[in-house]
Amino acid sequence: MIIYFRGMRNKDEHKKSEIIRATVKLVNEIGFVSCSVSKIAKEANVSPATLYIYYKNKEDLLVSTYIEIKQNLSETLMKNFDSAKPFRDILKTLWYNGFDFVLNNKDYNQFAEQFSNSPYSDLVDKKEIEKHFSPIISLLKRGIDQKIIKDVPFDLLTAFIFYPMMTLSNPKLCSSIKLDKKTIAQSFNLAWDAVKL
Amino acid sequence: MIIYFRGMRNKDEHKKSEIIRATVKLVNEIGFVSCSVSKIAKEANVSPATLYIYYKNKEDLLVSTYIEIKQNLSETLMKNFDSAKPFRDILKTLWYNGFDFVLNNKDYNQFAEQFSNSPYSDLVDKKEIEKHFSPIISLLKRGIDQKIIKDVPFDLLTAFIFYPMMTLSNPKLCSSIKLDKKTIAQSFNLAWDAVKL
Repeated sequence: MIIYFRGMRNKDEHKKSEIIRATVKLVNEIGFVSCSVSKIAKEANVSPATLYIYYKNKEDLLVSTYIEIKQNLSETLMKNFDSAKPFRDILKTLWYNGFDFVLNNKDYNQFAEQFSNSPYSDLVDKKEIEKHFSPIISLLKRGIDQKIIKDVPFDLLTAFIFYPMMTLSNPKLCSSIKLDKKTIAQSFNLAWDAVKL
Repeated sequence: MIIYFRGMRNKDEHKKSEIIRATVKLVNEIGFVSCSVSKIAKEANVSPATLYIYYKNKEDLLVSTYIEIKQNLSETLMKNFDSAKPFRDILKTLWYNGFDFVLNNKDYNQFAEQFSNSPYSDLVDKKEIEKHFSPIISLLKRGIDQKIIKDVPFDLLTAFIFYPMMTLSNPKLCSSIKLDKKTIAQSFNLAWDAVKL
């Protein structure tokens, strides 16, 4: 049996979150190839030896960072999830939670986008990620069964419901748009019109 | 006055396109930071001195490659553009041209996406790029004026019309989808339903 003393546990968690923060920062600044465990350790203010207690190697660290971000995203999406509500209302809550996450975690999203497009993404257990998003998958299935949304492949639904917010919140892609309340509401309407039957 | 002899011109064009091809290949493989002019010259089978005849430096080469890709894209989009046709038909032709480009130029898109998210994108003259897409901008304005599509910011329209095809054709993001005729047709319908009034 392992007993964690409160202080010890917190210190561990703090170090891990510092390492994750440093990984995201460095990868965004200098890219995956130039990033090394020793540079990340330095940025996180820990010794490489300490970093290796938590992560096996660079690959493990990058994959763990990505999974951590996806887990945070899924937790944020599910805030105030109430399956008793009408379908459109549930989707709207999810969607606004998603937009909040995207707007408030631009560095995380930049990392996740680069990671998804890198060879490292092949190291991720996709089933593990899907598990976090299973309530959303179930919700969309329910919407299809009840003939509320279109019966099209799941990837097609998410490409129109969730991906446009990534594009809109990326100032490198959409430099002129002002993401005020009105524009965000319009954006939900476009997403809803795209998928509704 | 500069007189180009046919052979000389062709040789120049051939060398330039080899350099562009090499730039895209290397950046996709090893990233912007690790890419150097000498590595690109080697990959393109030209001497660094030859490369410097056409491009001032690494920045110039990367920016020129991006502009070349955007120019190719805009030319592909405009194929069979017939402003006399009904709005939806013109948009559909544009959209299918776009999907063709995205499916057949995955390496170019990967480069363009990385480039857009990199600090190099600040070096691009956005007005220069917009010029290539002005017929599309005019078309969308016409659609808004004639109350065929929603009166929302331009970035919002393109985030729902054109960006989902980038997501769908990226196997790292959408691994399970089969982009057959049926799915592509469904995808256009979702895009259309998103923006139509």
